[in-house]
This record gives sequence, structure tokens and C-alpha cells, in this order.
Amino acid sequence: MSGKITIGKLAVSLAVSNTSEEQQLMQIAENVGYQYYKGRAGSMNSEKIFAAIETAAKRRGLVHEQYREEHALYHSILDAFHGICRGEVALGSILRTAGLIFSIIRGPRIAGDYSDGNWLAVALYGTIGAPIKGYEHEAVGLGINHI
Amino acid sequence: MSGKITIGKLAVSLAVSNTSEEQQLMQIAENVGYQYYKGRAGSMNSEKIFAAIETAAKRRGLVHEQYREEHALYHSILDAFHGICRGEVALGSILRTAGLIFSIIRGPRIAGDYSDGNWLAVALYGTIGAPIKGYEHEAVGLGINHI
Amino acid sequence: MSGKITIGKLAVSLAVSNTSEEQQLMQIAENVGYQYYKGRAGSMNSEKIFAAIETAAKRRGLVHEQYREEHALYHSILDAFHGICRGEVALGSILRTAGLIFSIIRGPRIAGDYSDGNWLAVALYGTIGAPIKGYEHEAVGLGINHI
Amino acid sequence: MSGKITIGKLAVSLAVSNTSEEQQLMQIAENVGYQYYKGRAGSMNSEKIFAAIETAAKRRGLVHEQYREEHALYHSILDAFHGICRGEVALGSILRTAGLIFSIIRGPRIAGDYSDGNWLAVALYGTIGAPIKGYEHEAVGLGINHI
Amino acid sequence: MSGKITIGKLAVSLAVSNTSEEQQLMQIAENVGYQYYKGRAGSMNSEKIFAAIETAAKRRGLVHEQYREEHALYHSILDAFHGICRGEVALGSILRTAGLIFSIIRGPRIAGDYSDGNWLAVALYGTIGAPIKGYEHEAVGLGINHI
Amino acid sequence: MSGKITIGKLAVSLAVSNTSEEQQLMQIAENVGYQYYKGRAGSMNSEKIFAAIETAAKRRGLVHEQYREEHALYHSILDAFHGICRGEVALGSILRTAGLIFSIIRGPRIAGDYSDGNWLAVALYGTIGAPIKGYEHEAVGLGINHI
Repeated sequence: MSGKITIGKLAVSLAVSNTSEEQQLMQIAENVGYQYYKGRAGSMNSEKIFAAIETAAKRRGLVHEQYREEHALYHSILDAFHGICRGEVALGSILRTAGLIFSIIRGPRIAGDYSDGNWLAVALYGTIGAPIKGYEHEAVGLGINHI
Repeated sequence: MSGKITIGKLAVSLAVSNTSEEQQLMQIAENVGYQYYKGRAGSMNSEKIFAAIETAAKRRGLVHEQYREEHALYHSILDAFHGICRGEVALGSILRTAGLIFSIIRGPRIAGDYSDGNWLAVALYGTIGAPIKGYEHEAVGLGINHI
Repeated sequence: MSGKITIGKLAVSLAVSNTSEEQQLMQIAENVGYQYYKGRAGSMNSEKIFAAIETAAKRRGLVHEQYREEHALYHSILDAFHGICRGEVALGSILRTAGLIFSIIRGPRIAGDYSDGNWLAVALYGTIGAPIKGYEHEAVGLGINHI
Repeated sequence: MSGKITIGKLAVSLAVSNTSEEQQLMQIAENVGYQYYKGRAGSMNSEKIFAAIETAAKRRGLVHEQYREEHALYHSILDAFHGICRGEVALGSILRTAGLIFSIIRGPRIAGDYSDGNWLAVALYGTIGAPIKGYEHEAVGLGINHI
Repeated sequence: MSGKITIGKLAVSLAVSNTSEEQQLMQIAENVGYQYYKGRAGSMNSEKIFAAIETAAKRRGLVHEQYREEHALYHSILDAFHGICRGEVALGSILRTAGLIFSIIRGPRIAGDYSDGNWLAVALYGTIGAPIKGYEHEAVGLGINHI
Repeated sequence: MSGKITIGKLAVSLAVSNTSEEQQLMQIAENVGYQYYKGRAGSMNSEKIFAAIETAAKRRGLVHEQYREEHALYHSILDAFHGICRGEVALGSILRTAGLIFSIIRGPRIAGDYSDGNWLAVALYGTIGAPIKGYEHEAVGLGINHI
């Protein structure tokens, strides 16, 4: 990444990055003061993916133990799911499954500009398709909320 | 980009890229045989954004003059819009506007692997928010269809 | 049509029928006591299609001048639109147009069986696609409500 | 059916047809070169209906063993479900069940006109309602995709 | 409540009322000839909430044992759920739960005015949030249908 | 209102209140430290209703001139719209209009309990229906967000 660093672009880039790209992006995140985490979650049950992201966020201190913070996180995940699901936020009930990488970033909308407080970005990237190996295509989603 | 090159990741990376990253990605696309285009579209009227992407795709030869090709393109744009809009595919009617960069890529799902024919990816990246300068946050969307 | 005559099947058959099939179906409808109407409506503005169907229904006496009747009609049209639009009840705002034939039927759910009172069925059949001649595919929708 | 034979009208007519009408329609389909299948599926779990239709399509050779073909089929089923469900693609989770007849047709959009390649139509017709005998009304859906 | 008494306002007021307010509202309902019921339902499974409301309505005679009445009730509940769920009519599948109070009212749209027959109102009020104590916020919904 | 005072219940009660009830509720709001506003907005164009509520909120100082605050407000209005619209956040495009009363409340989720910071509630109450006098029924919506 170069030029203006923003929370959404960083979250998406981190989610789609391979191992070497990942290292660079995490270094950039640290340099500009963002908190971040990258993990994996996949299931036919969408609630398990929600749970995996929420658990990671709490364990890594990306959200504090307070409902207003969990509320911001929850709606960021749900928004990102809209990008993955594209119409029906459903997986198993409509016979599809998703294997996703997620990234969570906490910090200002524009790196270094704290005039508008902290925001939270959740990006999802992976594949979605039939429960048959290879029968899938890529999907991406991004949710951003003030926190 | 490194590792396995896939149509969705390439489309998203191209859409979020700055000028220097863009050059690299377009070179990668050409090397592996993908057709691509990157452009801009923004409006309070969602149909204008659809029209801008469709026009670009046709002019650049990314889709042929045939309904089955336009149908694949249309649904890829609509899918990408779900990531941007996250629930209601609407902009002006719910008092928001979007300023987007779009990328269109045509080629196999996995670069070099033509066993499953050609696919089309449309990625959208930009900001969405109130019609007030600065009152916006980032959004991303990706639609993929067989063509 | 043969066998058990039902309001939904009759409405759909009438909407998709050609001129000769139409005559037969209207005769069947009259024989079993259904009130019916078949008409055309097409636009990029969905509200014009709603208006055309509501106007026809009132003029033909298929609904009485009472809100509870208009309410049943409205929701039958909206339900049928879901079949045509398949996700977003929108036409022009997402750069598509529809050319439809509609049928309205008033009577019992099963012909001759008045134990459950009167119902209203609205069926839509036609094409939906880009505002380019021939760039369209067929679509169908059915809404049924108690009246 | 008479006049111009089209894939959507044929699929819907086949789905709503009684036994004698069915024979006629299947003969028409064969005469004009369409591949077709008609079957039954019902459940409170929507994924079981998806699975039943996908299984039938594969077994009958209406789709080939390739993801781009399954992708076209999947989205045709999902589109048809929108007509049945009219807003929420959900059955058991909102305490309703569906008993459906499905038809699958593969061939050109207009019979005999191969200028735009092959398309796939999935039509659904049946009843949807409470899990109480007789507490249901008819519903129909149609999904069409290029294949 | 004072001024013009209407079915929707009464249903919502009854659902949000505390014990003393409740007594007043039930008295008002009886005075103007409305049938009413107030109960509780909560779950991660939305179908259980539907079932609880339907069961209460039947047991209390608010709907008669006839499909057209159950149909009106069902759609009133579903409409009210839209207010609670705000986009996806889903609870457990997107890792949230709801604890609700429901009210059902049967009578004219405007108390005493029978020119437009009877209507049914279902109001929902309670909290929706994560399956963690206190991690929730209030939600309300109202569905109204002719019966 | 009596018992525990919460932001959502107060917002809804204020929106549905008649003139005398309104005075009481506004007094309660002031007593417990809530900021509030009650106004009217109606149109066939949903964006005009959004604009009316946003304008009132800014003029009355219920939100500060900062995007994070406008973002919280915007999503509270959109959530409330889901209760009014129940499926499609659309008015004129599906031939209906709404005449609404809105209330905005800013303060803690539970009056007096500042452990979880400030929240914003937007409640909508009014009628929605055909553009024909009297052809309407009541609707309600509530959106709550951390601010």
C-alpha cells in the first residue's frame, strides 16, 4: 500500500493478502497506529463465522468488554456478510458454504487523522459455493462502523 | 500480488490500488492472459453507475454484443452493489451517494486454468455516505459470474 | 386446464397464455364462478405497473372501493413483483425494465369451495432486462391474498 | 402451448400442468429440442429443496459436471425461490413449509433460435403455508440463467 | 391513551406498557370493543416466537380456525418481525437473540368505525442482541392486516 | 411511563403520543437527562423523510457536526424505516406514501446509567398506504445506535 492509508482499504488488502504481502501490510498498520488482526473462519452455519470473528476481536483487545463496542463490531460483521452473501445473509439454509479469511482493524478512518475518533473495519475474503470441492467462487465484504 | 492469481482477488486489488500498485497489477493481468479495465463512476442515482460500468465493458470489448454476455455482466455489477449497499440496493432514495472505482476482469477463475471456461469479475471500491463532503466511509463489493 | 381448478394456477395460466389458450381459460373461469381480468403493463418505473394493475382491478369491479380490498390487492401485486424482481423490488433504479402481462382473479382458493371465503390472485408474466431490444429474459410472479 | 415457444413459459407451464397437460408439454419440448425434467420437492428446510433440484438436474444430464454449469443452476433455483418466498428466502425459520413441483428446462431462450446459446430455466409451483393441512396457498417462481 | 383510539397505536402502547399502564390500556380496549392479548416470547429461533404468538392468538379466540384468519395473523407477525430484525428476518443464524413482549389486537382500524371491517394488529417490543446478558438494545415492530 | 425508563420505549411512546401524553413524556425525558425532539415528516420520496429527520437532529443539537455522529443518526433512521416499510425500504417506487411523526432521543440506554455511554434512538410512527385519503394503516419503526 502507498499513498493515503485508510481503514477500509487496509482491511481489505490484509484480508486478500498472501503471506509475504501480509507482512508488509501488518508493518504498515503498526507504523500508522492501527490495531489489527487476521484470522480464518468457515462454515455452512453463518453464526459460527460471526462467533469466530467476535471471539478473535475480544481476545485480541480490538474491542473492549462493553456492549457499545460489541454492537459496532456486530454490525461491521453483518455489513461485511452482505458483500459475501449478496442478497440473502444465509449459507446452509440455501445450500451453500463459505471459507473465509477475516481482518479486523481499529483506528481512525484515515491513518493519523483522529479528528473523527476511532472506527472499526471488518473485511471478509474467501470463497462461497456448493458443498463440493472446487465448486465455489471468490467473494469479498467490508463493514465499517464508528466505535 | 503473488502466489496463485485468481480473478476475484485481482479485481479487488485493482479496484483498491493506487497509481503505482495499479501498474503492477495491470502488468500481472496481462502476463496471465486476463482482459481488464479500471474506471470511475459516482452518483446518487445507482442506475448511472450501472450504465457507466456497462458502457466501459462494451467499449473495451470485455463483453461481446450478445445478451448472454450482458446478462453475466449485469448480475456481476448487481452482486458487487450488494457489497457497497449492504442491505438495500439504493443510494439517492435513502439519501446517500457513492463515489466508486470499478474494475472488470475477464478470464478463468484461476489464472491459466481454462478447464472451467471464462468468468467475469466486477469489483467496486470507494466511499458511500451523506451528500456532504467528508461524511462518508469506504465500501467494497465483488460480483463474479460465468460468461 | 383440467383437474382441480385453483386460483393461483388459473391466474398464472391466464398470464402466460396465448390468444387461443386465453379464450379457453376465460371460459373455464366463468364456468366456475371466478371474476377475472387480463391486461398489459410495462415500464422502467415500477410504480406505473402497480398503478396500471390497481386501476384495472377497480374499473373491472374486481376489488370494491374499500381500503381492506385495496390492501389485499396491493400486497398481491407486491408479492407478484418479488417473483419478477427476485431480490430487489426495483426496475429503473438498477437499470432494468419490464414488459408484463398481468392477470387478476377473484374467487375461492379452490373453485367451488367457498368454505374459506374469497381470495385474490395477481399473476405477472413477461420479460425483464436491459433497456435494449432483445436483451431480456422471462420472469413470472404470483401473489395471493384473502379478500 | 401454441405460438412462439420460449423456455420460461414452457418451464412454468410444465410445473403447473396436470398429468394430461404434462404429456402434451413434454412432447412439445422434445419436438423443439429442449431437454427437460419435472419432479417434486417439499420441506420446511429450504436446503433440502435446493438439493433435490440439483440432484435431479445432474442425474438427468441437464447440467454437466462442471462448476460453471452448477453455478447457473444454483442461481436459477435461488431466483425461483424468490417467487415462492416473496421477500425472505426462508421456510422453517419463519414457521412455514412448501410443497413444490419443479421443472428444469435447458435450451435456447426462444425455441429453435440458437444465436444466443443455451439457457437454463427452473420453475417452481406448489403451495406454501403453515405446517397445518390445508393452511396454505399457491406460489410460483421462475429463474433463468445463461449456461 | 387519549384522543382517537386506533388499533396500531393501542397494540404498540400495550406491548411497551408496564404493569400499571397495561391495566389502563386493557380497560380502554374493552371499552371500545377491541379483543386483545398480551404475552411474552423469546428465543434464538425465530420460528418459536412465531409459534408462541400463533398459539396465543388461537387459544384466546383472536383468530378463528380458518386459513384466511391464520393467513392474516401470519403476515402481521412477519411484518412486525421486520421492525425487530431490520433487514434480515433472522436471529440465531446471525448470532443474535430476542426477548419480546407481544400484543395482538382485533377490531376496526379506528375504534368504533366498522365501515372497513375488522383488522388485526400484532406489535412486538423487547430487546435484541448478542447471547450475552445486557448486550442488547430495544426493538419494536408492528404488523397490521385486514381480517 | 413508569418503572425503568429506557431510550427505546421513551422514543416510541413519544412518537405515538397525543398532545397531553406528549407533555408528560417530555417532562420525564428532561427529568432523567435525555435530549429529545419530536417532529413530522411525510412524503412519497423516502429521501425527504431522511432529510427532515437529519435536519431536525442537527438544528436541535441532538447530533454534533461530525461524521461519526451523523453516521449513528443515519443508521438509526434507516433501521426505523425497516419497521415502517417491512421488507422494501421504498415508498413512491412501489406506489405508497407515508405520513410520519418522528422522535429522536439522545442519552444512555437506561436512564441514569452512563456505564455504556450515550445512544441515539429514532422512532417513527404514522400511516403508510396508497396515495388516496384514508387508504392507509399505521406503521411504527425504531432504530437505536451507539453515539
